[in-house]
Amino acid sequence: MSSVTATPASKGLEGVVATTSSICYIDGDQGVLAYRGYDIHDLADHSTFEEVCYLLWFGRLPKANELKALKQRLAEERKLDPSIIKFLQLAPKHALPMDVLRTMVSTLSFYDAEYDRNDHDANVNKAIRLTSHRSLSHASNFLLMLNGTAPSDTAERALDIALILHADHELNASTFAARVTAATLSDMHSAITSAIGALKGPLHGGANEAVFKILKEIDAKSADPVQFVKGMLAQKKKVPGFGHRVYHTEDPRATHLRVMSRDLGRSNGNPKWYDYSHKIEEFVKADKKLNANVDFYSASTYHTLGIDVDLFTPIFAVSRVSGWTAHVIEQLDDNRLIRPRADYVGPVYPQKYAPIDTR
Amino acid sequence: MSSVTATPASKGLEGVVATTSSICYIDGDQGVLAYRGYDIHDLADHSTFEEVCYLLWFGRLPKANELKALKQRLAEERKLDPSIIKFLQLAPKHALPMDVLRTMVSTLSFYDAEYDRNDHDANVNKAIRLTSHRSLSHASNFLLMLNGTAPSDTAERALDIALILHADHELNASTFAARVTAATLSDMHSAITSAIGALKGPLHGGANEAVFKILKEIDAKSADPVQFVKGMLAQKKKVPGFGHRVYHTEDPRATHLRVMSRDLGRSNGNPKWYDYSHKIEEFVKADKKLNANVDFYSASTYHTLGIDVDLFTPIFAVSRVSGWTAHVIEQLDDNRLIRPRADYVGPVYPQKYAPIDTR
Repeated sequence: MSSVTATPASKGLEGVVATTSSICYIDGDQGVLAYRGYDIHDLADHSTFEEVCYLLWFGRLPKANELKALKQRLAEERKLDPSIIKFLQLAPKHALPMDVLRTMVSTLSFYDAEYDRNDHDANVNKAIRLTSHRSLSHASNFLLMLNGTAPSDTAERALDIALILHADHELNASTFAARVTAATLSDMHSAITSAIGALKGPLHGGANEAVFKILKEIDAKSADPVQFVKGMLAQKKKVPGFGHRVYHTEDPRATHLRVMSRDLGRSNGNPKWYDYSHKIEEFVKADKKLNANVDFYSASTYHTLGIDVDLFTPIFAVSRVSGWTAHVIEQLDDNRLIRPRADYVGPVYPQKYAPIDTR
Repeated sequence: MSSVTATPASKGLEGVVATTSSICYIDGDQGVLAYRGYDIHDLADHSTFEEVCYLLWFGRLPKANELKALKQRLAEERKLDPSIIKFLQLAPKHALPMDVLRTMVSTLSFYDAEYDRNDHDANVNKAIRLTSHRSLSHASNFLLMLNGTAPSDTAERALDIALILHADHELNASTFAARVTAATLSDMHSAITSAIGALKGPLHGGANEAVFKILKEIDAKSADPVQFVKGMLAQKKKVPGFGHRVYHTEDPRATHLRVMSRDLGRSNGNPKWYDYSHKIEEFVKADKKLNANVDFYSASTYHTLGIDVDLFTPIFAVSRVSGWTAHVIEQLDDNRLIRPRADYVGPVYPQKYAPIDTR
């Protein structure tokens, strides 16, 4: 008794094309990632996160005066309504950072100047406000707030590249959650709140946190990284930071993060996190034929930048909000409700409803 | 240059089977809706919302002592952490009810006793807590809080039936958003926050609000309902509350809500909202061959129960949270990341990255 006549899709919608999009191009066989047609390697080498935001939201690279204007707006919007500070102060000490971030973005909807508008222009403004927000700020400002001192040029550029690399990735789970939410004609803040909730999961943004916990355990136990990972595999545990549903070759983001992890470790005289990572990578690649993904080297990179492990996933959100908002805008520009079917496999219909005292 | 080799799905994933599920059976051609195999008509006639919650979460109807125990737990959990009250008090007067509800559920994660657990048992507990919560309370308790006096038996039963009818509906957009979020192994509160954000949209839970606004305008202008709707159609406007992606015949929930709207109007001597609705329904059915859906008669029903239009969608959430939580539990019991693909249709790859002063 199947309830639906359509062909069942593969589990997790693997390989199912859920929409067209002009934002992100991925060739999983060739290891290509491009935003609006621009290769991620060119963007990582030459661009800035703010320029990438412009590219994602407006569909083309900015001219000098356009980039200047966007940077100014991003900086201007980097102030918080005092009520948000009160909300933040109410959160208990044990609250998880991603739970706080999700709640804060949901709360921001109350104070957004265009909270009751859902048109293209209002949503571009919301994209700028959500991305610029102090609670979601970036690069040097982020490191300044974090460490209390201005970052070195190397550290600032490293974080900027990390933000560029994480800005968008087509229909990843959080972006898809944002588009499903937006497609009911709900609003930008609802969509981004959904995305943050999805990013929190260890199968998505939470993975670099899991990678670092392993590196830390190896360090605390003075363990051999390869033996440690062999032990995990013997216990049928998955090694986080490896493999990707879309890439069948090296994740082009990992290429950059590997170099950053190595160079940052060398430049601050603390190369051990890169060394552990690199040994693990070589072993897993040889033994399991799995490539490191974006999460693997971001763990050692962020740690070397002085970022606490609890902030690894929030930083991912700081960057990805640029892509999420671009996808919400694209979804609403040519919207259709996203409403698939389920194939019913439960108790046969109809079950006889028996009075409660006869059950 | 297509980025994906798979066959593109229809827009909005129409007819795509995204998962198997044992919760909700829909036959859109026959107008059948059943929870765990029990026909919605049997449940509306004989069951209670609390019994339906048990059915959705535990997969079978409860025995008398099991139902008693669940009712007791739902009542016991109907208290709020005082910090939540402080959060609520901080929300500005203009904040939209669904934005507040979404934020409150996100905030509740801070105070959940099992905030850092994501196993089956913890999630059943979270389902009970989220459904029982005072901010998401139901039937007589809900009407008592709303009107300050105990509801009549008729009113209480009417709301209880409405809660039963709205409890689940397979992979509707909000439930799908919840499952996409949960499938990253994120948590129950993240998933329900996503669902509330999706439900807010006028193509989903927001539709009954849109229906009532039309009824109110007809009333204010003393307009003829049929002429009014003809005017809307002449302006190419869609009449909310009609048609459904899944049902090609009468939505079985509409069958009950029509009767409830009529009987409540008659019993309190104010039948005009039903009368307007019925005239519109007859016209749209004859002229456009479209059936009234669940949202159409819930508008007049809720209004006749003394519920403000701003609360129509939150009430939908009060009921649907039972189904959302059941789906999250089911998703996590046999999880796979939900990550489809997009077909890239943007600027041809590779675009040449030109220095900013040459653009």
